[in-house]
Amino acid sequence: MPDPALHLLAIPGSLRSGSFNRALARTLPQLAPDGVRVDVWELHDVPLYNSDLDEDGQRPDSVVDLKGDIEAADGLILVSPEYNFGVPGVLKNAIDWASRPGFRSPMAGKPTGIMGASAGLSGTMRAQEQLKLNLLGMVAQVFPHPGVAVRKAGDKVHDGHLTDEDTRSFVKGYLEEFTAWVRRVGG
Amino acid sequence: MPDPALHLLAIPGSLRSGSFNRALARTLPQLAPDGVRVDVWELHDVPLYNSDLDEDGQRPDSVVDLKGDIEAADGLILVSPEYNFGVPGVLKNAIDWASRPGFRSPMAGKPTGIMGASAGLSGTMRAQEQLKLNLLGMVAQVFPHPGVAVRKAGDKVHDGHLTDEDTRSFVKGYLEEFTAWVRRVGG
Repeated sequence: MPDPALHLLAIPGSLRSGSFNRALARTLPQLAPDGVRVDVWELHDVPLYNSDLDEDGQRPDSVVDLKGDIEAADGLILVSPEYNFGVPGVLKNAIDWASRPGFRSPMAGKPTGIMGASAGLSGTMRAQEQLKLNLLGMVAQVFPHPGVAVRKAGDKVHDGHLTDEDTRSFVKGYLEEFTAWVRRVGG
Repeated sequence: MPDPALHLLAIPGSLRSGSFNRALARTLPQLAPDGVRVDVWELHDVPLYNSDLDEDGQRPDSVVDLKGDIEAADGLILVSPEYNFGVPGVLKNAIDWASRPGFRSPMAGKPTGIMGASAGLSGTMRAQEQLKLNLLGMVAQVFPHPGVAVRKAGDKVHDGHLTDEDTRSFVKGYLEEFTAWVRRVGG
């Protein structure tokens, strides 16, 4: 009997049109196991967090949509560059919105994986460390895996997609492990 | 002979109207040593970072203003809540803009102190740790001090200002040490 269908949400942490991380996120649907759907959620329209607006009827539409889509997904994959040894404000801002109300938010218990790509050799590892702590702070379930860190992404991404075969194979394996884990730990 | 005048910029990391951190920032001008001016810079108008817009002639006006004001200041004080064990996206986003171009930005070498206030007992210490790494990532000079961590701020802030006498005295002492350090290390 096949595994039941699974629905993942991939959120790129960059808004840049030629972003390696958006390219990596957009490649995930091609690499996902059978029966696993991956949607990509872009953050362009999510405004700065302001708790004055964080009440029913006051929340920006994009935030209502983001929270609903995270709630409905079986698992989340954050695909992000590293800025200044840390998580880009753009991504942190979005998950700050999604993390409310504390401990009862759509992020609470959400199975979450992390990927990142960089032009240089850091592979976003420092940002991934900070992000893991942030996710634990909102009581998400963090996929216990070293993560996907795509280095020298300029050589591996073309025309808005991940093209390097070794990296595609690694990401494919990650998605297999991630989805098996989501099936074990998920709601 | 009196010390030369010094100009500090305080940036609150929260947009909430009743924010304890905005209140703390707004109190700094009252507590600064003689000859030290503190201006408060609010982040409401700083849009999400997008490197497609991070070029001369493309940058949003608020970003141009922010970078110019950081450049012109002798020192910077970031006054921020903690969200999810980390720096609020709102603040990280602003310093992501200010940190470009890498290592030659207005943040490079900028003497920077950190303060935070929380309703509970954390005092924002985890966010301050992450923020110190982010600042080092943009080669800012981080004030070597345990920082100001105002706990149970609901008891210490009234009418938009820090009112607790012990805390005011502590912050006053911090500002004396900070300004002495800025005079030593500043450009």
